[in-house]
Amino acid sequence: MAEPSSILIEDAIIVTMDPRRRVIEGGHILVEGGKISEIGGPGSKPRRKAEQRISAKGMTVIPGLIDTHVHLAQSLLRGCADDLSLVDWLKKRVWPIQGSFTREDGKVSAELSMLEMIKSGTTSFVAVDVVARYGFEGIANAVVEAGMRGALAKTVMDSPGYGRKGGIMPAGLVEKKEECVREAKSMIRKWNRVKGGRVRTWVAPRSLGGCTRELYEEVAELAREQGARVTMHLAEVREDVRYAKQNFGLTPFEFIEKVGLAGPRSLFAHMVWLSDSDVGMVGRTRSNVAHCPSSNLKLASGIPKVPEMLEAGANVGLGCDGAPCNNSYDMIREMKLAAVIQKARLLDPRTMPAPKVLEMATLRGARAMGMESEVGSIEAGKKADLVLIDLKKPHLVPYRDIVSNVVYSAMGSDVDTVIVDGKLLLRGGKALTLDEERIVGDAQKRQDELIARSGVRA
Amino acid sequence: MAEPSSILIEDAIIVTMDPRRRVIEGGHILVEGGKISEIGGPGSKPRRKAEQRISAKGMTVIPGLIDTHVHLAQSLLRGCADDLSLVDWLKKRVWPIQGSFTREDGKVSAELSMLEMIKSGTTSFVAVDVVARYGFEGIANAVVEAGMRGALAKTVMDSPGYGRKGGIMPAGLVEKKEECVREAKSMIRKWNRVKGGRVRTWVAPRSLGGCTRELYEEVAELAREQGARVTMHLAEVREDVRYAKQNFGLTPFEFIEKVGLAGPRSLFAHMVWLSDSDVGMVGRTRSNVAHCPSSNLKLASGIPKVPEMLEAGANVGLGCDGAPCNNSYDMIREMKLAAVIQKARLLDPRTMPAPKVLEMATLRGARAMGMESEVGSIEAGKKADLVLIDLKKPHLVPYRDIVSNVVYSAMGSDVDTVIVDGKLLLRGGKALTLDEERIVGDAQKRQDELIARSGVRA
Repeated sequence: MAEPSSILIEDAIIVTMDPRRRVIEGGHILVEGGKISEIGGPGSKPRRKAEQRISAKGMTVIPGLIDTHVHLAQSLLRGCADDLSLVDWLKKRVWPIQGSFTREDGKVSAELSMLEMIKSGTTSFVAVDVVARYGFEGIANAVVEAGMRGALAKTVMDSPGYGRKGGIMPAGLVEKKEECVREAKSMIRKWNRVKGGRVRTWVAPRSLGGCTRELYEEVAELAREQGARVTMHLAEVREDVRYAKQNFGLTPFEFIEKVGLAGPRSLFAHMVWLSDSDVGMVGRTRSNVAHCPSSNLKLASGIPKVPEMLEAGANVGLGCDGAPCNNSYDMIREMKLAAVIQKARLLDPRTMPAPKVLEMATLRGARAMGMESEVGSIEAGKKADLVLIDLKKPHLVPYRDIVSNVVYSAMGSDVDTVIVDGKLLLRGGKALTLDEERIVGDAQKRQDELIARSGVRA
Repeated sequence: MAEPSSILIEDAIIVTMDPRRRVIEGGHILVEGGKISEIGGPGSKPRRKAEQRISAKGMTVIPGLIDTHVHLAQSLLRGCADDLSLVDWLKKRVWPIQGSFTREDGKVSAELSMLEMIKSGTTSFVAVDVVARYGFEGIANAVVEAGMRGALAKTVMDSPGYGRKGGIMPAGLVEKKEECVREAKSMIRKWNRVKGGRVRTWVAPRSLGGCTRELYEEVAELAREQGARVTMHLAEVREDVRYAKQNFGLTPFEFIEKVGLAGPRSLFAHMVWLSDSDVGMVGRTRSNVAHCPSSNLKLASGIPKVPEMLEAGANVGLGCDGAPCNNSYDMIREMKLAAVIQKARLLDPRTMPAPKVLEMATLRGARAMGMESEVGSIEAGKKADLVLIDLKKPHLVPYRDIVSNVVYSAMGSDVDTVIVDGKLLLRGGKALTLDEERIVGDAQKRQDELIARSGVRA
């Protein structure tokens, strides 16, 4: 990894996400000791020389993008689970293939996911599918090596989920409650905040039907005791609502609130099937939501009430979810989708304007990860998580408000440079911390072997 | 322009769109005299040597993509008309800025649009906003120079459109009926099928409220007499339905059918607000539809009943529309959107599977342009309009069914090589027929000047 102690980014169009001065044209950013030490306007001189100078002429600098819901263990499943009903998607493809994962598959899948994320401008993420079988050690080490900022949420699940005849989860994925909690505790102890806090450990109840009420209560206690953050899939499909009504006489979010899991330290993915009263409660509890537009559309879950949740006071970030349901880990493409689907849903083109969406992908993502004071905007004193987008391309010119071009016209491949903690992870579109050739070359072979081992017909 | 007389593409994963042999892994394509002369499977040897050999190792070859609805004169408006109501979008931004176009602006805007299209794999298009003021000569010549296949549809409009107080169209855009028809005839005479048919001339009634009934009838007659094809915006917004009911006591499509414009030689863009009975009539008349998902979402028009139209027998292609309403001319990104929004609308993940969407972007686009026997699939005897997509990238591996990765994971920037009529327009991502540096450099200056001239505050 290239590790200059200081970097000066010059001649940039800086999208700060700082409401006091949103865009600075022709400015500079000085990075020292992994942090942003100075932001200067056009004409101003940086107060110190830097070891490395980066010309951002014809580029825009945005805060590193934050993916609040990603499945690291699913990139090896790309392209082999499409256009299926959710149950077939899970039972006939995702679970059997993931059930055949070795620890090496878990590591390579995480590397492939991170490679795609870095190349498309994501610097931080919340990974929701970390289980012992994929090799927690290997994945955590891979995050450290890749140089990203990652919250690894240990999946806990002690119930086979809902569905006919005793649930739909494969027995191999369900653990005993005590085991789940013990593993989660051990992971938190060992890995939380290693490497300057770049790896954090969270707890992830699998989904509403995947945990007993007792497990939810233990998770809530664990979160209080150990300060761990919690994330889970919630109200993704209509079935969630039926299950919660039938078993608890409550909506999914009402139940979660009742077991003590609502609030600003929890992050709920999807949240498609909410009543208006749920939306109010999500806002009042200042809960965090990971909105995954591609996934919600491609799996036909529906379109969540994102503007309403924001209006109610909830904090909504964005997520790419997994390769079999997106099929990309590209937050830039995800931003456009997040903007336009709400306009169509509400038949109002003014809803979800570009700056609001970029805020979801940066500042709000940071808040969802509990890191709002550290990342998510370009401000002096914050960690230097920065993304340079090259605008000198036919599809990115001309521009009037650069935020529009970033959200509506750009795509992941426009990312030129990525910096995390002041270290270069990508430069000129080339990955510096991960071995792209090895990982790309390895992926096909691994998928072929996984499918052969799992007996899936795809 | 590099013009080898023959090209051999080797080692390709060929997505033929020929139902008899959908995908050929490790095959070759021989191009001679601008046409596909041979397609061979793995291991087979081409029957002749070619002047130029292209290794497609690690790439997939798909038919050139066909954009059935694009505004060439809008790329210079990128990023300056976002998140506005449709009326503000038109009256406060699009019309005044376009009203300030010089012929040179018209030409450069067309070049910028084509450059983006070529770089993202589009080889043919239907342009719907060609008016005399943008310089028809200059635009047609630019298409010839760029090497693309373009239908240039002359806008005709003799009415200020609907809306309060005498219509919403600016007076400068409305012409006398006789003038519209005379110009359209002259364009057809001069330009139709020049350069081996790469430029074709169509007629485009602006939109439902933009033409008098008499003009529609003249257009229908012109189409019959001169064999010109017709395209128009229809049922894009709810207002279209109200207008048609009020003025004709019919739905928009019923009215169009009545004036003799429904049928397989007509192409209707958007078609969002259709009754079930309209859908049936679109199918029965074998009319063509240009579905523009980004535009329909971003302008909050709504989500059209695409699977229903296909089921009814209509031919539906895809379109990117314009830079202020998309904001990209990238058919690959458009394909994904076309697939996923229908799944969410119908709450069925099986609807609009990837192969159906790719068919819309290729074969069905060709049919919409009246060129199904010439382009749209990779078959011996068809014109050599081919696109090579580089798969050796983190976001495109692994693959199981390559069509899934093309539709759900790829983006325009993955296009490596573009061939039209056997001629190379793009190689290694570099444009060969258009001067990218000049066009990209020119675009910003022109937008700044246009906005200054138009007096728009953006």
